[in-house]
Amino acid sequence: MLNTVFNYIDENFERFISDLKDICRIPSIAAQNIGIMEAADKLKVMFENAGLNVRVLKVDKGNPLLYAEYKPRSYKKTLLFYNHYDVQPPDPLDLWVTPPFEPSIRDGKIFARGVADNKGNIIARLKAVESMLNVLGDLPIAVKFVIEGEEEIGSPSLPSYVKSYGSMFSADAGIWEFGYRDVSGRPVITLGVRGIAYFEFRVKGPRVDVHSGEAAIIPNPAWRLIYFLNSLRSDDGRILIDGFYDDLKPVEKEDEDLLKSIPFNDEEILKRLDIRGFVGGVRGFEALKAMLFNPTCNIDGLYSGYIGQGAKTIIPSYAMAKVDFRLPPGLTCQSLLEKLRRHMDKYGFNDIEVSLLSGYEAAKTDLKAGIVEVSISSAREIYGLEPIVYPISSGSGPMYLFVNELKIPMVSVGVGYHESNNHSPNENIRLEDFKLGIKHIVKIIDMMGRM
Amino acid sequence: MLNTVFNYIDENFERFISDLKDICRIPSIAAQNIGIMEAADKLKVMFENAGLNVRVLKVDKGNPLLYAEYKPRSYKKTLLFYNHYDVQPPDPLDLWVTPPFEPSIRDGKIFARGVADNKGNIIARLKAVESMLNVLGDLPIAVKFVIEGEEEIGSPSLPSYVKSYGSMFSADAGIWEFGYRDVSGRPVITLGVRGIAYFEFRVKGPRVDVHSGEAAIIPNPAWRLIYFLNSLRSDDGRILIDGFYDDLKPVEKEDEDLLKSIPFNDEEILKRLDIRGFVGGVRGFEALKAMLFNPTCNIDGLYSGYIGQGAKTIIPSYAMAKVDFRLPPGLTCQSLLEKLRRHMDKYGFNDIEVSLLSGYEAAKTDLKAGIVEVSISSAREIYGLEPIVYPISSGSGPMYLFVNELKIPMVSVGVGYHESNNHSPNENIRLEDFKLGIKHIVKIIDMMGRM
Repeated sequence: MLNTVFNYIDENFERFISDLKDICRIPSIAAQNIGIMEAADKLKVMFENAGLNVRVLKVDKGNPLLYAEYKPRSYKKTLLFYNHYDVQPPDPLDLWVTPPFEPSIRDGKIFARGVADNKGNIIARLKAVESMLNVLGDLPIAVKFVIEGEEEIGSPSLPSYVKSYGSMFSADAGIWEFGYRDVSGRPVITLGVRGIAYFEFRVKGPRVDVHSGEAAIIPNPAWRLIYFLNSLRSDDGRILIDGFYDDLKPVEKEDEDLLKSIPFNDEEILKRLDIRGFVGGVRGFEALKAMLFNPTCNIDGLYSGYIGQGAKTIIPSYAMAKVDFRLPPGLTCQSLLEKLRRHMDKYGFNDIEVSLLSGYEAAKTDLKAGIVEVSISSAREIYGLEPIVYPISSGSGPMYLFVNELKIPMVSVGVGYHESNNHSPNENIRLEDFKLGIKHIVKIIDMMGRM
Repeated sequence: MLNTVFNYIDENFERFISDLKDICRIPSIAAQNIGIMEAADKLKVMFENAGLNVRVLKVDKGNPLLYAEYKPRSYKKTLLFYNHYDVQPPDPLDLWVTPPFEPSIRDGKIFARGVADNKGNIIARLKAVESMLNVLGDLPIAVKFVIEGEEEIGSPSLPSYVKSYGSMFSADAGIWEFGYRDVSGRPVITLGVRGIAYFEFRVKGPRVDVHSGEAAIIPNPAWRLIYFLNSLRSDDGRILIDGFYDDLKPVEKEDEDLLKSIPFNDEEILKRLDIRGFVGGVRGFEALKAMLFNPTCNIDGLYSGYIGQGAKTIIPSYAMAKVDFRLPPGLTCQSLLEKLRRHMDKYGFNDIEVSLLSGYEAAKTDLKAGIVEVSISSAREIYGLEPIVYPISSGSGPMYLFVNELKIPMVSVGVGYHESNNHSPNENIRLEDFKLGIKHIVKIIDMMGRM
């Protein structure tokens, strides 16, 4: 039976690509507040045409959230898909071979901003459902799509959406937004994401920039920022905030075992990035474990004063740093904020202004959840290769709203590959991966219907 | 006799203003390499028309240096003027009331980029000489003008000019480029400048920006920069480089006495700049003394990674800081560089790239030099107010080439005032100060002729 669906996918693939191109033409950039309504409207029509019921939800000032569902007359299980229709800004534009919002096919790949992150996955999942409905006339399970429009700016409205519509989003399992094939072609399945707390720290100095001849007496806000940042982390990566590690959960045995099955070429990373070594001197398995399970305190940006060519002699009027903490399971944003405040009190850094720009807690699906085995065995069948399973992603996302709050076990699979250039120029997916990604979702739905 | 010269200045003042406007119309911005030849050519004509011999000197790739001299048939003394015809870039342009290179007179002030720093002083000194020559037919002393075109970019070619033409520049005394009247109208005379070493520090990170999810293992160059800067200076302003203070000369008794005569309103500074206190908690006399005689390590600029709105999660590919050290008498740029290298070896900061963008040593004229008394008593007479004498400026400049190397005692006097906005939008001088500045130079030349 499924072969008929797979044949349908093969036969209709050109049309699927055409639909993917259509949605990629819309520059739905949340950070710049453009193309948002247009993308939501376009998707609404696409999902309706495929036979789903669609609601465009709206809370406060948030970008609309597209909710689509299909419920068979009778079903036992419900599968939820989380995706987002907003994309990263396309700059730097001059590094794109073809314009970011004019989808272009070259060498069996389709290039466009958002094609990998995350529109390729939206369309693949939609086309899986559409193909099954067209060929089989029904689905063996119910499906729900939650497609938000603010993921790339930190999903500020998603908690409100979940609060207002959480019961509508209920499901037995879920598929998270992303996934990719590694350099050897093996599909990567991820069972969780880390939490994050993204801060902007600002220090006010003199009302205006002052001639640096007066630096012996006029306090310089850049120095205050340096002293503050220096107090947060030591060179080996250890975070120096009292009690920071208190609630950190130890890495579980089964996660360690999973890690051991992940190919990790540290020499390749060192060479590709042209760096001499890793933080704290870790290598091999220990480096992989650190990357996925160590909390971090990272400087994303730093600014003060004159940064042009040559010399300008000033005491700057302010200094700013952007810093993100990655939070493995156990650490929460709220607890970090409290500890950070105590740290600042203790060391006299109350002149530092703190803004929390965004924050999520970690989320992690139990290896024993049914959806994990379904995603692994289906991937093995569709890709013909053993999938690589990450217990948690090095990245972050608002998965906790679904996994921790709505109690939906979720895994992440998708149509990207190791050179998809998410967030970078020439973002792309391979057409072959797009097709296999559609079939993988079909297989997952089919298997879930048999559980 | 001098009254006739002063009358001539009063009668020809409109023409002098017109000449000042002419030179201010030329945007001679060394940092952008524009208007340089045009300004040098214009000044050449002006100095020749006034009856001086002019040579336009040139070394290597340096901007031309204008050398002008007048030697009477018989004379005992020679006075040298140091000035520069290059100006700061005018930005931010939108803060100028009238365009920076269209000189405009409002409220008895003339507004233009460079009118205070340093073209007003060039023209005032030229007009003093011209007026004496026209009225008296001769000068009582020889005068030499050294007018360079790279002061605002750190005078990179001036050492070569002094090496090649030092004997031609020889003089018994000199007048440095700048001077101003304080808020009470008292003329400020300065006997020296501090040295400076201006560094750019850069740290290389991964070849490209990397997703901050990998921060647990990928070294972040911004952290390295933070640790390095933190090692240089403590919060009370003390510089932590071994041996940094070794060669610092103690403040002399006569300089302390001079300081005591300088009006210094620390409450006004705190209020104007909206700061809570001074570095190290100094106040009053101690703050003034620190400002002029303490060495400093100051952050002028700081940059790494993403500094736009909102959040971007990256490990930046590099980090950069601009740092200037002010060097009171005794400390040299070369010695600092050696100590800094040892500091970096000692603490393992050899991944920090060091560029010395510019460096001068300090220069200070002895209070007992004849030109000091001449400048003070002439100022007292011309301005009708007691001058304020600074033993050294809080700023820096290449004065050491003349004072330390050519052994010419120099003082700094000029046509600015406390709101001249040097290096800032709406740079201006008061017409009254321009006129008094011309007369002050006439009086200095006259008095030097009687020594």
